[in-house]
Amino acid sequence: MIRPGSTLGILGGGQLGRMIAMAAAELGLRTHIYAPEENSPAFDVAAEYTIASYEDEAALVGFAKAVDVVTYEFENVPSETAATLSAHALLAPNAQALAVSQDRFLEKSFIAGLDIPVAPFAVFANEDELLEAVARIGRPAVLKTRRFGYDGKGQTMIRPETDPVTAWDALGRAPSILEGFVPFEREVSVIAARTASGGFAAYDLCANEHRNHILDTTRVPAGVSAGTEAQAVAIARAIADALDYVGVLAVEMFLVNDAQGERLVVNEIAPRVHNSGHWTLGGAVTSQFEQHVRAVCGWPLGATSRLGRVEMQNLIGHDVEAWERILAEPGAHLHLYGKAEARAGRKMGHVTRIFDESR
Amino acid sequence: MIRPGSTLGILGGGQLGRMIAMAAAELGLRTHIYAPEENSPAFDVAAEYTIASYEDEAALVGFAKAVDVVTYEFENVPSETAATLSAHALLAPNAQALAVSQDRFLEKSFIAGLDIPVAPFAVFANEDELLEAVARIGRPAVLKTRRFGYDGKGQTMIRPETDPVTAWDALGRAPSILEGFVPFEREVSVIAARTASGGFAAYDLCANEHRNHILDTTRVPAGVSAGTEAQAVAIARAIADALDYVGVLAVEMFLVNDAQGERLVVNEIAPRVHNSGHWTLGGAVTSQFEQHVRAVCGWPLGATSRLGRVEMQNLIGHDVEAWERILAEPGAHLHLYGKAEARAGRKMGHVTRIFDESR
Repeated sequence: MIRPGSTLGILGGGQLGRMIAMAAAELGLRTHIYAPEENSPAFDVAAEYTIASYEDEAALVGFAKAVDVVTYEFENVPSETAATLSAHALLAPNAQALAVSQDRFLEKSFIAGLDIPVAPFAVFANEDELLEAVARIGRPAVLKTRRFGYDGKGQTMIRPETDPVTAWDALGRAPSILEGFVPFEREVSVIAARTASGGFAAYDLCANEHRNHILDTTRVPAGVSAGTEAQAVAIARAIADALDYVGVLAVEMFLVNDAQGERLVVNEIAPRVHNSGHWTLGGAVTSQFEQHVRAVCGWPLGATSRLGRVEMQNLIGHDVEAWERILAEPGAHLHLYGKAEARAGRKMGHVTRIFDESR
Repeated sequence: MIRPGSTLGILGGGQLGRMIAMAAAELGLRTHIYAPEENSPAFDVAAEYTIASYEDEAALVGFAKAVDVVTYEFENVPSETAATLSAHALLAPNAQALAVSQDRFLEKSFIAGLDIPVAPFAVFANEDELLEAVARIGRPAVLKTRRFGYDGKGQTMIRPETDPVTAWDALGRAPSILEGFVPFEREVSVIAARTASGGFAAYDLCANEHRNHILDTTRVPAGVSAGTEAQAVAIARAIADALDYVGVLAVEMFLVNDAQGERLVVNEIAPRVHNSGHWTLGGAVTSQFEQHVRAVCGWPLGATSRLGRVEMQNLIGHDVEAWERILAEPGAHLHLYGKAEARAGRKMGHVTRIFDESR
């Protein structure tokens, strides 16, 4: 059991680490950020920080020894880094959660193995196997690199007219999988938390809209049936239990509504706080950031109830120039990440609006 | 106009500075704390800090030049310190607000000059004048040092049997005032904010209960008539306007209910965020800390509406050992200040509980 006054180590210095650090400080914890980039946004709200690469073993050992528990804000923590940290400190979520979520093939296989619906998928090692996979799964399909894909990067559509080999070439022939395209009605996600003792709590399902493959807006409730909502939570719980997961996790899903009715197909897992959970900061009794801190410290989970109908809008790149107008809007909650330069596609902040449930 | 990315300087490194710093970071500001004490709680959530005395002119000038606007968490900022800072940076609230609130005689005279009810009071320079004041004001009365009183320190009751001169001796014969004792029903306070352009917003009146002269519990609403509530806000506004005030201020008042009916008598002003406003963090749309940041930056004030009926309880000294039980209580919002040692009388944290208005 971690006590207030202990130090939470956070790998990664972006806005997620920053918001975890603030939630930890609210609960009386000290924080120590580890990130390779100078001027990382999270440094500004942390008690300590270390600037070093994720491959710097001496720095990692020093960091792990200086803190009481280590968590992270991104799933691409190298497995060697996770192993080094685990040898000297409590790491939560665990290395298995990282391994599964880092590799789309492992991830899909793991989820399918729990009898949870996923898109049809196939792994391939060469051109012949790729063509065979396309023939079996059909078109449209999506070619995705097994590792390091995010915000639409590392993936490409295989349409009726696409040459699969050319498409694979465009991905640098990186190890990839082929996925059947899911004709979804909406993208939804569940933010949930699990503790080491098996405690579990989920927030209401949220509906996500993307713009240029980057999350633009999250709306809660998602407008699905109670049965679908319950199914989503059951899926998140099954995944969390199977990973012996500790912390907040996000499960991104497609909502399909076809002849078989309304149903969910899991897209991917993020073993961390998630952009589609930002609405919980101000929009739910306990924010996902506080919930994550509670879970990794072995503390009781907080209430996940919503304070109303919630909309969260990302401020991407120059969107942030609207900050003054947003501040003047009654009841709008502005969150800025302290990033100096508003580059295109860069997440600069977000705004949360909470409405009476009836409106 | 201060822009996000600018640096807010905060004088004082306790829990108030800490919570202001976190609110500033949420809005994309950098923070720089100036405090004499090593290991000040606010350092852990600030981008920069300076450890130096409030009399260290070189350090003050360096601090003022390094930030875009300076605010403070305590009213006993020496006037020379305020003057030095004002010469090199924007200081908000202004030096006048400090001067008035630092001296009980000046404070009472200023408030009475606005035709706002205060307890009868008298200043005295020697024993004869003290005895004359006691004769005029009557007993019971309260002898209070003009400066540096807080949490019941620097004051003593003059009861029917008390020798006034002995009582004054007990205060070290410090320059003091004598105040008539107000037979109050409840202690209440208004937390309000004013901007440089005259924008004004107040939170609902709150009722405060003290234990050993330290705030124990704040409840909102205060359970007074609409007329009294409106009078309280009008008083806060008159005071803020007269001081050309910028930032959050607290006005502590006595609620009297006698033959003349329910009415308010102002006790004192705090030119800063205030313990009796902690309920706004999670209990109102905009916290007093965010509101203060908005005001000192010249930004629009946020909405002050409550999210329900709110109770805030301070965790004093060993009260904080209940942290785990509080974390397990659904809907309780725990805030800990990161102080290492739980000494008697020390404010270690607070807990806010929000209930449906009807319950």
